[in-house]
Amino acid sequence: MPTQEQMKSALQAYVDGFNSGDPAAVTALFADGAVVVDPVGDPPMEGRAAIEEFYGNAVAAGAKLSLDGPVRGSHGDRAAMAFTVHVTGMRIRVIDVMTFGADGKIVRMEAHWGPDDIEH
Amino acid sequence: MPTQEQMKSALQAYVDGFNSGDPAAVTALFADGAVVVDPVGDPPMEGRAAIEEFYGNAVAAGAKLSLDGPVRGSHGDRAAMAFTVHVTGMRIRVIDVMTFGADGKIVRMEAHWGPDDIEH
Repeated sequence: MPTQEQMKSALQAYVDGFNSGDPAAVTALFADGAVVVDPVGDPPMEGRAAIEEFYGNAVAAGAKLSLDGPVRGSHGDRAAMAFTVHVTGMRIRVIDVMTFGADGKIVRMEAHWGPDDIEH
Repeated sequence: MPTQEQMKSALQAYVDGFNSGDPAAVTALFADGAVVVDPVGDPPMEGRAAIEEFYGNAVAAGAKLSLDGPVRGSHGDRAAMAFTVHVTGMRIRVIDVMTFGADGKIVRMEAHWGPDDIEH
């Protein structure tokens, strides 16, 4: 299991990858067979190709992330963060939960945001 | 499935129940067979008796909660919130994810906080 520090560093690198416009830096944090659920309630995206397409599009759209507080760890293989996405005249308030594999790669990402969490 | 507003109201009621020292108000938000994982990585607590004991102890210890930002919904049956627990000279930074049943009761709560998320 990765350490607390490794998981928190990965979440910070995820934010930094967005903010430097570097989708490869974001997708490199994920395991090959990872699952991304964004938003929770929509069908999962699975595997590297789907994940690269998803983050490629998000970064190309100019999405920037600002943390709403410190990243949280757990007593297991998960870390979580509350943040705001700033993109094309709107803000989306999100809470992501990431699950990690033994090698420190993200194996599952779940993004919690609903229709009411978008501000124009 | 409960509405976004119902789920967010339940999370606010959870915070308010702590802050008014009313464990019954907190536990009334849960379904009878609900599961509480606090923190993630520790064994789950299951069922009303375990949940009443857990929240009874937490409220009796004087724990007060302050939200670190707006509660988030989802496109499904979940809502999440980032908050800080203030108790006996320490602060614990937490992100809770709650899953709801069709009747609007919480069926699962997962609390994300690690050893490094405690400040003395």
